[in-house]
Amino acid sequence: MASIFSKIIQGEIPCHKISETPDYLAFLDIMPLVEGHVLVIPKMEIDYIFDLEAEYFKGLWLFAKSLAPAIEKAVPCKRIGIAVIGLEVPHAHIHLVPLNHIGDINFSKPKLSPGQEELARTAAAIRSYL
Amino acid sequence: MASIFSKIIQGEIPCHKISETPDYLAFLDIMPLVEGHVLVIPKMEIDYIFDLEAEYFKGLWLFAKSLAPAIEKAVPCKRIGIAVIGLEVPHAHIHLVPLNHIGDINFSKPKLSPGQEELARTAAAIRSYL
Repeated sequence: MASIFSKIIQGEIPCHKISETPDYLAFLDIMPLVEGHVLVIPKMEIDYIFDLEAEYFKGLWLFAKSLAPAIEKAVPCKRIGIAVIGLEVPHAHIHLVPLNHIGDINFSKPKLSPGQEELARTAAAIRSYL
Repeated sequence: MASIFSKIIQGEIPCHKISETPDYLAFLDIMPLVEGHVLVIPKMEIDYIFDLEAEYFKGLWLFAKSLAPAIEKAVPCKRIGIAVIGLEVPHAHIHLVPLNHIGDINFSKPKLSPGQEELARTAAAIRSYL
């Protein structure tokens, strides 16, 4: 289903891009749980992640895995956590979240609101390790 | 690293099993966030999910995907959410969590403590849809 992510994929809305392939895109969440919170999405418009066809689904996860070491190097954290919720934007997306505490993944708490310059710096730092 | 999950894999500690393959195992979390909270683990003793070799990593996710429709049918929910935290038990594990609210995935809130009979009923219900 068309959503804000479709506009980001098509370049109609800018994003702080981390990486892109013909099938997948990763960019910074602009309302992050913590600094370095990355969204990983399939370019195909599918709402529910478990509805992705097997090969495409596996490829999405492998793409996410390829990004984790760079996020870990760019952002102080113990490891990269994963969440998929999907009750808001109707386009499948994986949250990669630098974790320091067990409560860092909690989507009901207030989000951060970093400025564009801060987001650009974080994205550049992550890309520098890819 | 050997952990309580190694003992569950080896059958030394019982679990409410959902499904098993030569490489992977899924069973109910006995301290669930919500009813029907399933843990999906590789049998290989690896702490950090992103350290799994690519094919084995992809297979773990495909195994998790194969379970989601059965959990959805057995437990009233909007969809199945995913979380990987990994700050406690040092053996990679995916949480599959039946979601009704955006705050259902929050590992800092108090867990449920269902009895063994209730867990057995839930596991049987999920298995009946596999």
